Amino acid sequence: MTGNPDCIFCGIHSGLSEASIVFQDDLVMVFMDIHPVNPGHLLVIPNEHASSIDDVPEDACARMFIVGRRMVRALRQSGLRCEGVNLLLADGAAAGQDVFHSHLHVIPRFQGNPGSVRMHADLSAATSRQELDAYAEAIRSSLDAPGE
Amino acid sequence: MTGNPDCIFCGIHSGLSEASIVFQDDLVMVFMDIHPVNPGHLLVIPNEHASSIDDVPEDACARMFIVGRRMVRALRQSGLRCEGVNLLLADGAAAGQDVFHSHLHVIPRFQGNPGSVRMHADLSAATSRQELDAYAEAIRSSLDAPGE
Repeated sequence: MTGNPDCIFCGIHSGLSEASIVFQDDLVMVFMDIHPVNPGHLLVIPNEHASSIDDVPEDACARMFIVGRRMVRALRQSGLRCEGVNLLLADGAAAGQDVFHSHLHVIPRFQGNPGSVRMHADLSAATSRQELDAYAEAIRSSLDAPGE
Repeated sequence: MTGNPDCIFCGIHSGLSEASIVFQDDLVMVFMDIHPVNPGHLLVIPNEHASSIDDVPEDACARMFIVGRRMVRALRQSGLRCEGVNLLLADGAAAGQDVFHSHLHVIPRFQGNPGSVRMHADLSAATSRQELDAYAEAIRSSLDAPGE
């Protein structure tokens, strides 16, 4: 286990920083977000430091989401208010990542807090099938690109 | 393969409905969202119909996220504008789920479109360590609950 000394999440994982821990195993750890969107807001992190999800080994990446799904179930049985759940991962500052140890948010949602997590598409700007096909082709081509 | 005749995503998977497809394998399928938050917005679905991520078999759940991560890499190499990426899953209407075949959004982000995906915590309402510990205990207890 090699922690990054400047990383708050590595500090939590090593026990140097305080956290309210829910789960840990050989690949991932789960604790409460200290700035919760709603009560019960959890973070799932890989044990090993990696800034981007791109750099998380495949077994730890799969485990993050399997454990995230397990947290969805646990939240629903916990007695905390939970009428829906968002799983959200921000990769890169432009996507809203603020701590650069990759982490998956597990966020309980309920009717009446629509602003807590919001995705906004401009439905007035229709996208044609031709455009969508061009995007699909660009992405598909990159699946086989060197470095992939 | 048993599709739900009322489900638009089962219709896409079976080929009855049009879509711009990027990837498919034995467990999951990826296509362009027809109401993109940003150009390049993708959806990853399990092949088999399941309304909630809770009902997606574990192998398909893990694959959804491994393939989602692969799409993050492909987007960054595609030439489409992509300075960050959000992975977002909404489980339940209260969480913003609109199509009830579980799906993972893969959304390219860039500087200057902060409103496209937003998570809002009320930072003025501090949560005490005591409260966080109580939430953690409630969720931890539910990990071992019957039905889990």
